[in-house]
Amino acid sequence: MSNKEFQIAKQRALTSLEQAKKNKEVDSAILPLLSLINSFEEYYTSSSCAGRIVLLEIPEIGDKQQATFLGKWHRPITINEVRLCFKKYHNHYLWMLAQPPIFHIGAASIDAADSMIKYAVASGFKNSGLRSLQKKIILEVCSTERLDAPLGKNGSILCTEQLLRLCIEHANTVLQKSQQKLYRFKRLLKGRILDK
Amino acid sequence: MSNKEFQIAKQRALTSLEQAKKNKEVDSAILPLLSLINSFEEYYTSSSCAGRIVLLEIPEIGDKQQATFLGKWHRPITINEVRLCFKKYHNHYLWMLAQPPIFHIGAASIDAADSMIKYAVASGFKNSGLRSLQKKIILEVCSTERLDAPLGKNGSILCTEQLLRLCIEHANTVLQKSQQKLYRFKRLLKGRILDK
Repeated sequence: MSNKEFQIAKQRALTSLEQAKKNKEVDSAILPLLSLINSFEEYYTSSSCAGRIVLLEIPEIGDKQQATFLGKWHRPITINEVRLCFKKYHNHYLWMLAQPPIFHIGAASIDAADSMIKYAVASGFKNSGLRSLQKKIILEVCSTERLDAPLGKNGSILCTEQLLRLCIEHANTVLQKSQQKLYRFKRLLKGRILDK
Repeated sequence: MSNKEFQIAKQRALTSLEQAKKNKEVDSAILPLLSLINSFEEYYTSSSCAGRIVLLEIPEIGDKQQATFLGKWHRPITINEVRLCFKKYHNHYLWMLAQPPIFHIGAASIDAADSMIKYAVASGFKNSGLRSLQKKIILEVCSTERLDAPLGKNGSILCTEQLLRLCIEHANTVLQKSQQKLYRFKRLLKGRILDK
């Protein structure tokens, strides 16, 4: 990809980020980090999620594409919030997921991508790597801790209160660890410490 | 990396694969696929797991490094097998995980790595990408469906029999889908269909 093509892709990504901010589709906690990455000449952010806890109704095992969201939070949750969402559960499989942050970042060169992956891994995002080398160079920043737990089937909740508390405890830990990693990522990038 | 360095790395990887085969550390179901990848001049396999179901005792949330294996299977499992393993559970947190296959493949060039990623993604391993571009070019082949479910705390099983059956149903589905993807991967690579 030429530098001109990179600049066009970056401009496009920044425009859609501005649109997403206006539509309140971006988690505000992650905006300073996105701005920092976009302030570097050789990078732009193309998509991001700051980490989340979700309750899903899934028609078939593995078919998360067809899932219905019963609850979605970008922060630690309480058992009462989860119980309120259970009222919306009537069919199929019920799942609780805790997902770590995921970012896609466009890079101007493979060297630039490699350097950003180093920052991500050093911040604790051990599951980071290059996703695409075709038309654009895109890297993915992600970490490993997560929860993927089934809680119900055919509209019936099958977990005990104690197990539900355990799932919530773990899901909240995933979010807290995610926030620490995001903070570390921003701090490392701010100093560009690994470049020195 | 020069071609000579790649050849040395490949030779080393093949030698340790032979050693691992002798020690029965490689899942035999995956061996034909590893042999196929290693038969191509521009690739070698550096590590692999064909997908597995595990029961773990974990001292602290998120601390899978310190986990003790109570059970490990590379095939679908029954509730009786799981119950037998429960007898070994006395402390900390109890988890059931179903993990899709994961491979690391060394490539002679970025183009070769990119081509292998295409085969992996086309086979259903959507979470595949380049892991390293430093001294060696290493790509990771992985897919997304999984189970990460807590089942107990402080030595007590907290899940109902129904929920345990649901976890096992899902874990077995993860393994079955993994096997289908591995089959597809081998078939596509055999034909090198995407290169034509």
